[in-house]
Amino acid sequence: MRIALGIEYDGTNFLGWQRLSHGASVQASVEKALSFVAAEPIEVTCAGRTDAGVHGRCQVVHFDTEVQRDMRGWVLGTSSNLPTEVAVLWAQPVADDFHARFSARSRRYRYTILNRAIRPALDARFVSWERHPLDAARMHDAAQALIGEHDFSAFRAVSCQAAHARRLVTMIQVRREDACVIIEIEANAFLHHMVRNIVGSLLPVGRGEQPVEWVAELLAGRNREVAGPTAAASGLTFIGPRYERHWGLPPEVSQ
Amino acid sequence: MRIALGIEYDGTNFLGWQRLSHGASVQASVEKALSFVAAEPIEVTCAGRTDAGVHGRCQVVHFDTEVQRDMRGWVLGTSSNLPTEVAVLWAQPVADDFHARFSARSRRYRYTILNRAIRPALDARFVSWERHPLDAARMHDAAQALIGEHDFSAFRAVSCQAAHARRLVTMIQVRREDACVIIEIEANAFLHHMVRNIVGSLLPVGRGEQPVEWVAELLAGRNREVAGPTAAASGLTFIGPRYERHWGLPPEVSQ
Repeated sequence: MRIALGIEYDGTNFLGWQRLSHGASVQASVEKALSFVAAEPIEVTCAGRTDAGVHGRCQVVHFDTEVQRDMRGWVLGTSSNLPTEVAVLWAQPVADDFHARFSARSRRYRYTILNRAIRPALDARFVSWERHPLDAARMHDAAQALIGEHDFSAFRAVSCQAAHARRLVTMIQVRREDACVIIEIEANAFLHHMVRNIVGSLLPVGRGEQPVEWVAELLAGRNREVAGPTAAASGLTFIGPRYERHWGLPPEVSQ
Repeated sequence: MRIALGIEYDGTNFLGWQRLSHGASVQASVEKALSFVAAEPIEVTCAGRTDAGVHGRCQVVHFDTEVQRDMRGWVLGTSSNLPTEVAVLWAQPVADDFHARFSARSRRYRYTILNRAIRPALDARFVSWERHPLDAARMHDAAQALIGEHDFSAFRAVSCQAAHARRLVTMIQVRREDACVIIEIEANAFLHHMVRNIVGSLLPVGRGEQPVEWVAELLAGRNREVAGPTAAASGLTFIGPRYERHWGLPPEVSQ
């Protein structure tokens, strides 16, 4: 049978989601804990890989097993074998043609910038830092140019392995909450570093160094080399994917 | 001259505020960094000591020095010599009779409980965990009995070294925010473990195991042994002290 899991993690101490031979990954932690509960080797497929230092609010994975456990057993048994920074939120049996990555209709990310003169301390794991005052309304206006289906080559990492750069951005909001500027973005899928590269290009607009139209120009130019630098990983959280309702997944990942 | 500093810290990896011979403390980190900037030994006095794992949003300290530095130098120089989890938010010259502890008119704490079936992962450093559903409105009603000047012996740690147990609680609010229950409390001063012991006695009320009146009865009984257990340190943040306006401190610590 195929089972889907919702997974939450603090990515600070991991080299990223993906299993690697040279260090701790969230995937390896989850697979090790699941394999212990199943008493057989389990491999998982995720909705969206995250980089080193990036967090997950509700990552979704699926795996196949013939082992019989109730869903509570998968959740509690796996969580009790995971490090403190990782937990299984829920488990749900799914149809055999469900695929955590390919069935996802959209993905949402949140990026948080602490905007003050002093570097972060209490929230250091969960924010990036900008000391120059940011105009969140200007950043929001600039970001609206990204909505729709576009070639996002301007915001694509050199290392990105996607077949093409066309993605459909359905929502991007920039707002201030106290000392923080928060960027929320939803798309059908994302290129490697796409959110952090977009944030890196919204920052000069927020600081007043570039006009609001600059982001639209960068998008049209499709040239990564003229866009802003990649923003820090610590500010980024993968809120999670969304699937069609017929898969029967929990409300936070259904649409 | 006497200088006051605002200090923010993630207390997870410290044995607490107070300097200790056997491990890392926030105080020792701050004194080491200040001493480096001053090029002379500096000792600080804080508004409120915090225990191991407890965080500080705006702790206030004072120290005396004859060294001349501008306030920007104290802030940036000290922060750049502090570990990632500690930062100096501001520095302000103060009158010689200002005292971070004795001049404080009130202190505020916030306690955050993640109230869900699954243990925390992403927020593990900053919340405690309650798996049974909590009724925040019931907890709020029960907590109102604590407002006013009372003998808080029922919520005082055995190790507390205060001369007496009378404290004036001016505000206590319990509210739900998504999956979290948040408790905010303000008093002229606090006994050792007072906030965590109050939270530990609000939890059985929130779970429905004790009536709303129980907290009032505990307070009147003055018996620590019948009150609830001490809630976990991770959920607690010292928001900071408040001083009279005439000291000229930043708005977040002035009243």
